[in-house]
Order: sequence, then structure tokens, then C-alpha cells
Amino acid sequence: MGNKQSDKNKMTTELIDSAEIIAVGTEILMGQITNTNASFLAKELSGIGIPSYYQTVVGDNPDRLEKVIKVALERSDAIIMTGGLGPTQDDISMETTARALGIRLLSHEESRKRIEMFFAEIGRPMVSSNLRQAMLPEGAIVINNSMGTAPGVIVEKILNFGGEDKIKRVILLPGPPLEMNPMFLDSVKGYLMKYSPMNIHSVYIKLFGIGESSAEEKIKDIIKAQINPTIAPYCSAGECLFRVSYSKSKQSEMIENISHEEKIDKVVNSIKERLGDFIYEIGQRSMPEVVYDLLKEGNLTVSFAESCTAGLVTSMIGDIPGASDVLKGSVICYSNRSKTDILGVSTQTLASFGAVSKNTAEEMAKGCIRILKSDYAVSVTGIAGPSGGSPGKEAGTVFISITDGMNVKTEEFLFKGDRQKVRYLSALNALNMLRRKILYG
Amino acid sequence: MGNKQSDKNKMTTELIDSAEIIAVGTEILMGQITNTNASFLAKELSGIGIPSYYQTVVGDNPDRLEKVIKVALERSDAIIMTGGLGPTQDDISMETTARALGIRLLSHEESRKRIEMFFAEIGRPMVSSNLRQAMLPEGAIVINNSMGTAPGVIVEKILNFGGEDKIKRVILLPGPPLEMNPMFLDSVKGYLMKYSPMNIHSVYIKLFGIGESSAEEKIKDIIKAQINPTIAPYCSAGECLFRVSYSKSKQSEMIENISHEEKIDKVVNSIKERLGDFIYEIGQRSMPEVVYDLLKEGNLTVSFAESCTAGLVTSMIGDIPGASDVLKGSVICYSNRSKTDILGVSTQTLASFGAVSKNTAEEMAKGCIRILKSDYAVSVTGIAGPSGGSPGKEAGTVFISITDGMNVKTEEFLFKGDRQKVRYLSALNALNMLRRKILYG
Repeated sequence: MGNKQSDKNKMTTELIDSAEIIAVGTEILMGQITNTNASFLAKELSGIGIPSYYQTVVGDNPDRLEKVIKVALERSDAIIMTGGLGPTQDDISMETTARALGIRLLSHEESRKRIEMFFAEIGRPMVSSNLRQAMLPEGAIVINNSMGTAPGVIVEKILNFGGEDKIKRVILLPGPPLEMNPMFLDSVKGYLMKYSPMNIHSVYIKLFGIGESSAEEKIKDIIKAQINPTIAPYCSAGECLFRVSYSKSKQSEMIENISHEEKIDKVVNSIKERLGDFIYEIGQRSMPEVVYDLLKEGNLTVSFAESCTAGLVTSMIGDIPGASDVLKGSVICYSNRSKTDILGVSTQTLASFGAVSKNTAEEMAKGCIRILKSDYAVSVTGIAGPSGGSPGKEAGTVFISITDGMNVKTEEFLFKGDRQKVRYLSALNALNMLRRKILYG
Repeated sequence: MGNKQSDKNKMTTELIDSAEIIAVGTEILMGQITNTNASFLAKELSGIGIPSYYQTVVGDNPDRLEKVIKVALERSDAIIMTGGLGPTQDDISMETTARALGIRLLSHEESRKRIEMFFAEIGRPMVSSNLRQAMLPEGAIVINNSMGTAPGVIVEKILNFGGEDKIKRVILLPGPPLEMNPMFLDSVKGYLMKYSPMNIHSVYIKLFGIGESSAEEKIKDIIKAQINPTIAPYCSAGECLFRVSYSKSKQSEMIENISHEEKIDKVVNSIKERLGDFIYEIGQRSMPEVVYDLLKEGNLTVSFAESCTAGLVTSMIGDIPGASDVLKGSVICYSNRSKTDILGVSTQTLASFGAVSKNTAEEMAKGCIRILKSDYAVSVTGIAGPSGGSPGKEAGTVFISITDGMNVKTEEFLFKGDRQKVRYLSALNALNMLRRKILYG
């Protein structure tokens, strides 16, 4: 009894020094799906201050999976495992984990009832194999799955490694991201935060119009001098963000004079001083969301005239719930004829300057605002490539115009990359020009 | 000498029974990037018949990386490692691999010259650390990198495990997919095929309009009865494909009466009999590519009138090089006003039936073909959600019309899922209706 009590105590106090991620599934080993669960979980672990040194993918094979689990138990305090919780005989994550930990499986009544209800609701007959999903490790914390039949579990067990008792925590979640993500966010994240060795506070700074290496170069000294908060770059095509994270060890006794908010603000401000022109968001919103919010707040509308982007710009706004509040419509004018007939671009302009020109872009924007009667119109015309360029106008040349009905402003770009990248960068730049127009006129 | 010779012989004949994939990079462990290299390589390995049972991600830490390499050498005949080949002190894949294999690094003259040339060409000064990238394992097969400075290598070494000599092959490639993918396809794939235990021949059957489970259900008996060729499903939102693969062990002495083409054809035909209506491609093309090719071959043009998809359909065609040959243009008519003013939808129709209705969809298609003068026009109007539905017309309700200028055909859909999914499925269905119209009138 006394021993049990102290075990219980240990369970609720011992921190997780590191966690690793295991994905179970032959379909990942065969390249049928990409292991996005690992990057999702890795980002979450990093965000809550739990170090992670390994990710493993292994198939639905009991021997190989058991070996992988045992290696992970030895080197990490926690394991997050995804996949292999389905109802078929191939799904072996639950029983293999239980075997590796030396815990038996028991039928979990509440889960059994939930599975029966799930089938009753969708009106499909349940087969007996579905009840395998209610067989859970004895004493596990059960995580309900509102999107499917497989419950998840958190299993805690004290194991002895090298003569030392350590508490190990194994978290099993289903493979489909639509089920896994909410289960992690709703139930697992809070649990892990309790045992994270760190308290972490993060702010995201999102930049546009500057590459990762140039942005890093400009704040290299700040990044180097910064121990806490840290500054970590997360960059992808056309966009770049820095995560500023302040972490404090839960075991430190240090009393600090200033709050973490102040510490983060100080770093954010020093980055703003250097890169202010390129920052479009301090927070989590995407470029289309920032533009949408600016339009919505100002009770403003927009329309687009797209040639080379062929609907991509409009589609980025269209993706946002409530898009119809700010989007009047668009004209996608791939042919010269559609540019003249619908938008009223003059045949003279097309003949003299070509479809990919400042003049055509301007007339497209003017025509667009005239027929769609929006507050702003943005036009894009360019050569997405890979072929179609000409001397002086190589593939990747793009003109973007914006008008408020009074003035027209045009910018010329030369984007490097394949067709997809040129179109994507064109679309983001069109939205960024709109953002700047709304903010700065 | 005699020994060397037999080693050499072993190197060139011993097959790879299994290969595993190791990705090196703290940015993957922190979730800053998704490990798409692993899924790319996994699919390639599967395609050439080399089994793969493990994938690992580990950070730029010499001890942990060396341990991971040693475990992999013991359980697999080949390792494909990506990442950690950069010029900085943090990039340790090459030296750690050499240490794990007991091979020394030497400066590789040709690679050194290529690195110097690379910097001369882009006109940037080279720092001495860049020459670290020319330090390669003695005797390695060097793989040139046309997109960057880091060469890849294939290292072959006979190691003793459990008293048995086995040839182990370690392939190191840079992390950026733009560099890694062509290096793998141009140089590594052919090398691996030589040592694959199997000769593999595959054909892809792509389906539309049927879910993974329904499709599998319909050919369950064929899949079960099929040992060689095998049938493997690869499914994602709205699309489903089966890979039919015939594999023959290189060591088998079996003489076969019929060719692998005939064997594959037989399986493909049996799937066609059951699922013919849903098959849009036997090959590798995507739905937009199939539609583009049909238009191009028939010298036909199309235009789109998009409401809820807001440019997504047009954008899928616009993504294809040469899109301007088949795409006249599009009108994105988010507001009622743009539906009436540009497309000529009658205010009466909008008032009586609503913007999301069969009648509005039809008038949109008719208006579109009139003003854009294409051979076909396709219109999409619906409620992408998540809100905005009404009784009888819930979120996910979508009407798609297609016209050739004479007849109009309309279909009503009810899609389940979030806003992105509803829009994506609407776009794919619009293209599929166009495909069927071109083929079957």
C-alpha cells in the first residue's frame, strides 16, 4: 500500500525530459501516405517545451514494433504513437504496447458503449472485430474519439532501466489526422504540459517579401545573443516566420524581475526595428486571413482580374469562411479576347505592349473595378512558364496592378522557380500589395 | 589480392533484402518541416521492389546519429540517409557515417572543383567551410548535385554481423527535395534497381467518384485472390488509385509462359469490369491533366463560371503548362450582382430559386459560354460552409452545370467535410463532368 502510494506520487510529479514519436503503418513505409502526424506532434512538443530526439516509422509487425517500443522506452520518458488502432487483426499497436509494458488488456465498458452507439447512429451493422477497439490497457487514461471508433489511451508505468526506477508514459492515438489532431489538442496536450520540464511562451512574427537567409542575416546578432527567449525560423516558399519562445525550467528557483511577456516583447521589438517593413502579422494568421480581416474591418470589398494566376488569388480569399462579405468576384482572362471583351483592355494596348505589360495590368485593374464595382481591384498578368518567355520578358515576369478607382499602382516582379511557384508567389504578392494599399493608401 | 577480388565480386552481386530511410535534421524533430523525403523515397523503394521496414528521424547530434546508423546497419542491407550534408559544423552526416563504417574521409578533387565553380558562377565568395562538402568517404561512388554544392555518395562496405560477412550499402543525399529528388532519380534509383531482389512492373489505375472503402469492397475478392500481381490502394480526398504490381524474384528460376504485361493486363481488365465507370486514367496523369489532354487533343476550349469554388477549378487547369491553349477564361461571380451584370443571370431566377440552385447554375454556364466564346463552359455554385446553409440546402450543397452551347446538363451534390474539402471536391467533380461530356457527349 505504502509503495503504491509513492508510485502514485511519482506518476503525478515526475517530469518528461524527452519524448519521441512512433508512427505505425505499412502505408507510410510504402510511401502511400506522408507522415504528417509526426510533424504536427513534433511542432506541438517543441511548442510546449518537451525535447524530442527521435521519430520512428515501423509497420504493423508485432516483433519489429515491440523492439522499437522497447528501444524508445529506454531512451525517452514518453512515447507518442499514432496508427494501428483500427478494428482488424493487422492493427496491433494496443496489444503490442501492452505486452512491451507488461500490462494486460481489459474491455473498457464506456468505450464499448461508445462504439456500439457510433454504429447505431450511422446505421451500419457493427461486426464483432469492432469491439477489439474497446480492449484497453488496465489502468489507462482513456481519450475519447469524437470522429471515429478508436479510443486513444495514456498509459503510465514505472520501469527499471540500469537499476533506476523511472516513470514512462506511452500515449496511443489513431492514425487519421482528422481523429488524431483534436484528440491530441483536447486531451493530450494539457496532460503533457503538466509534465513538460519547461513553461513556454511563444509569439510568432510573420514576414513577407524577404527570404529566409536575408531575414536571418539581418537579425543574426540578435539570434546569436538570444539565449532566452530563443528565436527559431520556420520558412517556406515566399513566407518566413520567426518563433520567439521564452522558456523557464519548472525546477528553477530563480525569481525574475520582469515578466515573460516583457522579455518576449523586448525581442519582438528588436526584430521589428530591423524587419518592420516585412512583418505582416504578429500572431498566427496567414496572409489571406490578414487581408480578409483588413477588408472586413474596413467594410471594404475587392475583386480580381487574373491572367497567369488563373483564379489562385481569388481562391485564397475564397478559402476563408465569410469570403462573400469582402469578395465581389473576379474575371480570369486567359485569352486576349477575354481581356478586351470583358475587361475592356484596348486592342491597341495589347498590340503595342503585349498581354504581359504594365499597361495591360493597369487596364485590367481598371476594367475589373468598373464591372465588379468593388472598393479595390487587383490584376495579375505574367508568364508562369516554364516556356513562353521572350527576350526582355522571361518566364517568371509578372505585373500586378492595384486600383481604388482613383489611382492605379503597378509593380513588376521576376520570380524564379517552376510554374507552381511563380503562380503561388504572384498570388501572395498580389495579396500583399492589397494589404499595403489598405494600410498605407 | 584474391580476397579483394572476391569482395569486389560480392559487392556487385549481393542483393538488397531490405533498405531503411534515415532523415537527419533538428528542423524535422522540431516540426519546422515535414519529412516528405521519407515518403518520396518509400514510394520509390516500394516501386522497385525493395522492402523497407523502418524510417527514422534523428537530429544533428553525433552520438545519437551514430547509434541510429549502427542499429540500421545491423537490421537492413541498405540505408538511404537524407540531410546533414551542409557546409556548417552542425552538418555531420558524412563524417558520422564514415566513422560508423570505419572508413576515412578524403578530399574529392572533382567535387572540390565543382564547389569552387558553383560559387564562381553565382558570383558569391566561397568560405572555407564550403570545402568540407568535398570531404567524402574513401572509395565512395560520388553523386553530383546540379542544384547545390553538396555531393551525395554511395558507400559499400562488407561488415560482419553475427559471424557472417554481409555487404552493406549506405547512400547519403542532401536534405532539400529540389536537390535530393533529381539525384535519387538520376543516379541512385538505377543503382538500387540492380540490387533489388525483385523485378517489378507496375500499372496505376485511377478512380474518381467512389470512396476507398467502396472501391476496395467491390474488388475485395480480386485483391484477396491476387498474389502476384498485387493490388495496393493509394487513396486521398476525392481520389483513389490502385497500383497493380507484378514482381518476380531475380533468384527464381521459374520459366513463365505468359509475360508480365499479360499478367498485369489480366488484373487490370478484371478491375475495369467492376469499376470501369469510375476509372479516369490508367497511368500517372491527374484529373486536370486528363481533362487538359482531352481538350488539347480535340482542339477544344473551355471557360468556367465559379461561385463557391472561387477560382479553384480554373486554377487547376492553369497549373498545367500550356493551359492557355485550352482555357479561354473564367468569371468568378461571388456576389449576386456579378452573376447578373457579367453573366446575365436573371434577377428573377436569383429571387425565385436562389443563387445556389439548378436554375442559377444553368444560367451561369450559358452566360459564361456566351461571353467567353469557348466550346464548353462549366459553372459551379454552392455553399462551401461551414455556415450559410438553410433547410433543404445545407452547407456542402453544390450545383454544377456544363454546356456545349446547345444543351445544358446539371448535377446536384452534397459534399461532407470542411470548407476546403467541399471546394476541392466541387472542383474535381466539375472537371470530371467536363471529362465525361467530352468523352460521351
